[in-house]
Amino acid sequence: MAAAYDPGTFAGLTYHEAAAAFRAGSDDPVRYLERCLATIAEREPAVKAWVVVNEAGARAAADASAQRWREGRALSLVDGMPIGIKDLIETKDMPTQMGCAAFKGNFPKRDSALVRALRDAGAVILGKVVTTELGGAQPGPTTNPFDAACTPGGSSSGSAAAVGANMVPVAIGTQVGGSVIRPASFCGNWALKPTLGALNRGERLGYSQSTIGVHANSPVDLWAVAMAIALRAGGDPGAPGLFGPPEVPAEVRPQQLVVMETAGWADLDAATRGAFEGVLETLHALGVRIVRRADTAMLEAFEQSIADARTVNAEICAFELRWSLENLVEQHPGKLSNHALKKLEQGRRMTLDDFRRRLQERDAARARLSAIAPLGDALISLSSPGPAPSNDPAGARPTGKATFNYPSSLLGAPAVTVPLMAIGGLPVGVQVMGQPHEDARVLGIARWIASAVAPVRAG
Amino acid sequence: MAAAYDPGTFAGLTYHEAAAAFRAGSDDPVRYLERCLATIAEREPAVKAWVVVNEAGARAAADASAQRWREGRALSLVDGMPIGIKDLIETKDMPTQMGCAAFKGNFPKRDSALVRALRDAGAVILGKVVTTELGGAQPGPTTNPFDAACTPGGSSSGSAAAVGANMVPVAIGTQVGGSVIRPASFCGNWALKPTLGALNRGERLGYSQSTIGVHANSPVDLWAVAMAIALRAGGDPGAPGLFGPPEVPAEVRPQQLVVMETAGWADLDAATRGAFEGVLETLHALGVRIVRRADTAMLEAFEQSIADARTVNAEICAFELRWSLENLVEQHPGKLSNHALKKLEQGRRMTLDDFRRRLQERDAARARLSAIAPLGDALISLSSPGPAPSNDPAGARPTGKATFNYPSSLLGAPAVTVPLMAIGGLPVGVQVMGQPHEDARVLGIARWIASAVAPVRAG
Repeated sequence: MAAAYDPGTFAGLTYHEAAAAFRAGSDDPVRYLERCLATIAEREPAVKAWVVVNEAGARAAADASAQRWREGRALSLVDGMPIGIKDLIETKDMPTQMGCAAFKGNFPKRDSALVRALRDAGAVILGKVVTTELGGAQPGPTTNPFDAACTPGGSSSGSAAAVGANMVPVAIGTQVGGSVIRPASFCGNWALKPTLGALNRGERLGYSQSTIGVHANSPVDLWAVAMAIALRAGGDPGAPGLFGPPEVPAEVRPQQLVVMETAGWADLDAATRGAFEGVLETLHALGVRIVRRADTAMLEAFEQSIADARTVNAEICAFELRWSLENLVEQHPGKLSNHALKKLEQGRRMTLDDFRRRLQERDAARARLSAIAPLGDALISLSSPGPAPSNDPAGARPTGKATFNYPSSLLGAPAVTVPLMAIGGLPVGVQVMGQPHEDARVLGIARWIASAVAPVRAG
Repeated sequence: MAAAYDPGTFAGLTYHEAAAAFRAGSDDPVRYLERCLATIAEREPAVKAWVVVNEAGARAAADASAQRWREGRALSLVDGMPIGIKDLIETKDMPTQMGCAAFKGNFPKRDSALVRALRDAGAVILGKVVTTELGGAQPGPTTNPFDAACTPGGSSSGSAAAVGANMVPVAIGTQVGGSVIRPASFCGNWALKPTLGALNRGERLGYSQSTIGVHANSPVDLWAVAMAIALRAGGDPGAPGLFGPPEVPAEVRPQQLVVMETAGWADLDAATRGAFEGVLETLHALGVRIVRRADTAMLEAFEQSIADARTVNAEICAFELRWSLENLVEQHPGKLSNHALKKLEQGRRMTLDDFRRRLQERDAARARLSAIAPLGDALISLSSPGPAPSNDPAGARPTGKATFNYPSSLLGAPAVTVPLMAIGGLPVGVQVMGQPHEDARVLGIARWIASAVAPVRAG
C-alpha cells in the first residue's frame, strides 16, 4: 500500500547491506529475489512500474549468483542484485518497446552495453520498467509509489517508481532533459545523472546530451552499479567513462556551496522553497559558506546562460531526433502521440543553422559553468519544483516540470539527487551538481549532506 | 571490361554535367539511370560491387525526378542522381547485411539519416554496395574495376568499385581507419573523408572516430552530395555539421603545403614514391612552398604523434566495438570471421584504463595537428602506399594497407583523395588533409592540384 512519505523513516530496500548475510549463508540472492518478486506482486497492481518481468531468467541468474556467494567468489558488489532496466534499453531476453506503439513487440536479441556489463558483474536483470513514449512527454501507466493519484515523473517513470516502491534496490534510467533526477525526486530515490558520456549508452547515442542514470535507495548501491558498468563497458564511444573509486566515495564536507536557482526558481511552491531555504540555513549553521546569486556577477552570468535551458534542450533534441521520428511516422502511421508529433514538427521547422546556434548557446553555458568552478565545491539546488503533481495524462506536462533538471543535461554535468525532504507527504529531492567528471566528489558531498542535515518535513 | 587506368584519359561518370541536358529535355534522370543499369549489367559479373540493386524503386524515383526536372522544380543538385549506399547503412527498402553472416536477411525498415536526406533531395537510392564484414578486415567479393585480380580496397569496397566502374556517379562509404580514402585511391575515385561528425552517421555512432564518406568521379558531384546530406540531416548529434558553400568550393591555390609522411612512408613502393616526389616537384615549380619533415621540429613532433596511429586506432575501435561483437558471437555462433574474432579478443584484453590511455594519445595527436596549422595551407600525402595489391582473401591485410589513412581518422581531420596518378596501370591517389572543419578549403586545394598538376603515369 502507498503511504505518506517520510524521509526520516522511509526504509528503502538496499542490497549492499545483504552481502554480510550472503557470506554468512543466512541469506542469499535467491531469497532476496523472491522478496523483490513478492513486493512486486503486492504493489504492482497500483504502481504499474513494469512492462516485462523475466521471472524465470532472473531466478536462474539468482541461483548462479547464490552459488558464487556460497563459494566466496562473487563477481562484484552487485553480484545477485535484481535490477530493472528502462524499456528504452535493449535486453537480449526481453522486448524493448520504448513505451511506443510503433515498437510494440520490438525484440532485438542483444544486450545494450550496460546490460551486458551488469550481467558480467553478476547482476540479475529482472525486467523492463516503464518509460514514457520514446523518453518524451507522453506518459505510461506508472503511478507514484507514495500516492497513486500522482505522477512518478518521467521519462524514467518505472525506474523511479520500482525503486521507490522497494521492488528492486536499483533501476537504470536515462536523462536527456530531466528524466532521471525529476522522477527520482518525486519517488524518493537517490539517483545519479552522471557526467555526459560517463556510462556507455550502447545503441542509444542519438542525442548529444543524453546519459544513462542510476536510481537506488542507497548511494552505496548506486555507485556500485555505476562502477560495475563503467569498469566493464566504459563510457560512450570516445569518452573516458566514469571516474572515481571502486566503492562508494566517502562523505565530503564542502567548505562552500553555490546555490543554483535555474528557471525552476520561479516554479517553486512556497512549502518547497521554505524547506529548501531551511536546508541552506542548516548547512550555513554547520559552517558551510553559501554563495547566492546576488553575491557575484559571475554566478548571475552563469544563471543567465542556463535561463533558457529548456528551449535550448528542446531544440537540440528535436533536431537530433527528427530523422528517426520521420522513419516512425512513415513506417508506423498513427502510432505516435501528439507529443511526439509536436516534437517532430519542432525539428522540421529547424535549419542546420538554427541547430548550430543552439549548440553555441550550449557551449557558452558550459564555459560559464567552468568559469564558476572556483566559487564553491559544488552547486546545490532542488531536484524538482515541488512534489509530484497529480496524474493528468492529457495535461501539457503530464510527468511534471523539469525546470530544475535541464541545466545539468545541457551542461553535461554530474547531478545527484538526495531524498531529503517531504512536502505534503511526498518526496522532494535536493540536487547537488558539479563540474564534468566530478561525479565521485558530487556523490561524496551529497552523502555528507544526507548525514549532516536532518530530513525536512513541510507542507 | 577492365582496362589499364590512365588518370589523364579516364572518363569518369559524372552527374552535374547532365543537368543542362535535363533542363533542355535532351536527357533525363530516367535515361541516366538506364545507362547506369546497363553498365552494371555489363560490368557487375566481374566487379561484384553490389549486394542489392533496387531497380524498381530506382526507376520510380527517377521517374519522379524526371518530372521535376521537366517542370523546372528540381529539388537540389542531386535530384535524380543514382547513388550506391554502403551496406553498413540502413535503407527502408533494402536489407542491411553488413557483409556479415550474422546479419543475413537483416532488414530494419528505416532510412539512415543520410539516406533520408538524399531521398529528400531527390536522389535515387539505387542499391546497397559491398562492405567488408562489419567494415573490418574480412573482404567481400568485390574486385578492382581496373584489374579484377586486384582488391578494390576496403571496407568501402563496393562504393569505390561501383564509382570506378562508372556504374554510378556517387556512392556513400564510411571510414573508421582507412575505409574511404584507401579504396578510393585504389579505384581512381575522388573521395571526401570529412571532419569527424560532419555528416550524420544516423544509427552508426558506435565508434568515436568513424565518419560517413563520399566517393565520386568528380569533386562537383562529391560536394553536392555532401551538402545535400549536411543541410538536411546535419552532422552527428551535437556536431555542427559540414561547413562550406552550397556548391563545390572554388579552386584554392595554396602558398605552402606540408608533406605528411605517416607510418606509410616506409611502405611506399619505389614507383609510387617517385611519382609522388614528382608531384611535389611540380608543385614547387608552380611556386608552392613545400615543407618537409626535416624542416621543422614541430612537424617531426606531429609525425611522431601519428607514428603509431594504426595501433591507437585499432585499440580504440576494439574497445568500442567489444560489446556489440559479444552480442554477435553469443547470438550467432560461428557467424563471424577470424578477423572479427581477433578484434573481439583485442577488445577483451583491454581495460578501461588502457582505453583512456589511447584516448590521451589521440588527444595529443590532435593537439599537435592543431599546433602545425600555421605551417601550411594543408597537408599533402599519399592516399595509399601504392596501387591495389592482388586479391588475397586469406592474407593478413586482404584489402591493402591503410597506413596512410589512419592519421586522418585518428585526428578527425578532413581528407580528400585526388585521382592523380597511375602506377603500373592502376590508380593511386594523392591525399590532401586539413584542420577539422576545413573540408571546403581542402577540397578547393585538391581541385587546384588536380588542375595544375599533370596526371602522373609510372611503374
